[in-house]
Amino acid sequence: MKPLLFALPGNELLAERLSQKMPAELGQMTLRKFPDGETYLCLLTEVAGRHVVLISSLDRPDEKMIPLWLLAKTAKAQGAKKVTLLSPYLPYMRQDKTFHPGESISTRHFADLVSGMVDHLVTVDPHLHRISRLEEIYTIPTTVLHAAQPIAKWIRTQVEKPVLIGPDSESKQWVSEVAEKAGAPYLVLEKKRFGDRQVEVSVPHLGPYRNHTPVLVDDIISTAQTMIKAVEHLWQSGAKPPVCIGVHAVFAGPAFEELKAAGAGRIVTCDTILHSSNAIDLSELYVPVFNNS
Amino acid sequence: MKPLLFALPGNELLAERLSQKMPAELGQMTLRKFPDGETYLCLLTEVAGRHVVLISSLDRPDEKMIPLWLLAKTAKAQGAKKVTLLSPYLPYMRQDKTFHPGESISTRHFADLVSGMVDHLVTVDPHLHRISRLEEIYTIPTTVLHAAQPIAKWIRTQVEKPVLIGPDSESKQWVSEVAEKAGAPYLVLEKKRFGDRQVEVSVPHLGPYRNHTPVLVDDIISTAQTMIKAVEHLWQSGAKPPVCIGVHAVFAGPAFEELKAAGAGRIVTCDTILHSSNAIDLSELYVPVFNNS
Repeated sequence: MKPLLFALPGNELLAERLSQKMPAELGQMTLRKFPDGETYLCLLTEVAGRHVVLISSLDRPDEKMIPLWLLAKTAKAQGAKKVTLLSPYLPYMRQDKTFHPGESISTRHFADLVSGMVDHLVTVDPHLHRISRLEEIYTIPTTVLHAAQPIAKWIRTQVEKPVLIGPDSESKQWVSEVAEKAGAPYLVLEKKRFGDRQVEVSVPHLGPYRNHTPVLVDDIISTAQTMIKAVEHLWQSGAKPPVCIGVHAVFAGPAFEELKAAGAGRIVTCDTILHSSNAIDLSELYVPVFNNS
Repeated sequence: MKPLLFALPGNELLAERLSQKMPAELGQMTLRKFPDGETYLCLLTEVAGRHVVLISSLDRPDEKMIPLWLLAKTAKAQGAKKVTLLSPYLPYMRQDKTFHPGESISTRHFADLVSGMVDHLVTVDPHLHRISRLEEIYTIPTTVLHAAQPIAKWIRTQVEKPVLIGPDSESKQWVSEVAEKAGAPYLVLEKKRFGDRQVEVSVPHLGPYRNHTPVLVDDIISTAQTMIKAVEHLWQSGAKPPVCIGVHAVFAGPAFEELKAAGAGRIVTCDTILHSSNAIDLSELYVPVFNNS
């Protein structure tokens, strides 16, 4: 039977695209707040016996989780056969160990919450670092999809003579993969982090790539401080205005405007989080997952 | 060993009062948001082997649950022997059945979330209606405390010749109990609800209580529409300005100002939710619970 897609607020476009690319039905619901701040939910499409897919990218996660919890539990209570969470952006992936005594390993506790809520999690390029696979922290089946191929395709068709640049050593594996698929060279900068918003990045040695177009690639652009530092150093080294590519357009506070002001050329993101910079449509990635479900 | 109290933001006063009335230690923590909206948590007081009490009234619950989830799970992960949630106001108690096809029974799903989070729940006068006991929906032990005695005491000492008035039939049991403890007569009005904010209330027949001071008593004052209608009808019937008493000062949006403008005399609430109308301190109620823990 066709999956039944419910789009949480802000995810309607992805639900629409998916329903055009694969056999799927768009579910209808009423989701609103009571005057006292509690969530009211009513499923207007029958879910009994269906594979229900909840589409909700989870940037700014704290305010989204209770409506999502109610939606998942209500679908189950009303007889859904399976409930899948399609969250193109998976949050809480950074605090994955105790850096200072007493710190919460929120990555694990968030995974517990999601594992107790749905039967299957589908996401795109989670920020895996010390935890190397989602299976280490999620007790439900997970499917991880990769944006490297669509990004490489975008670079191949849109950028002349690209040289890919990873803004820090964490990005190396990621940038090298995109570079290989795009048939382009790459460099990786070094980064030191001093706080939530303070970072220092090494000056790149462009060498033979002076006349190439620098393409900065990172998985998450959040405060954008890492990318801003890289952009500034590229300017100092006399490079062309860099294209900035991120998978996940988190853009905390004024980050997008600050990145533009720092001298970024085009800023381009995948559509995992709705944002004006979205230019790389990933909806094709999800189709095989749900066609096999 | 003394319980270790962690006050979530807005609950510091209750934690302070409790620590003065019983053997308890105030726990220290850092709880803040990362720029991207995720919660950062660090417990600065050692919790291993301790009975940890999280104090968090849960009005406007959706935004509070993820920090609370992380706090509860982190305390457990760091070795807390027991984690209790002291939530003087328990939310999600109204949508306790499917009124229209497809509606979420959020009361049950919220109870599931809390039951999966802590070992024990302590609250004050939850809005029980079709569900008659918290045990029907919570799988963890629960302790329900009652504000009737402290409210009755306040009325006895602060109001001359009171006549208690329940604004709707749901409040009858509640008002009759307070009236008995206060040694005062009582009346109950009839209410019809047409939506979140539309209610109609019957005109009271004050009869022999024309020269008494009307004291409207309800468990939750949320939009205050029920109480406002009752206040207006009391004015029409020539009564004195009524004292309005609520256990839980939810006061959604402009509700408090609207209730004052409608002609309420003094507006008085218990301190289950921090509000300028708080006048009845319930901290004594909690002491026996934690002294036996």
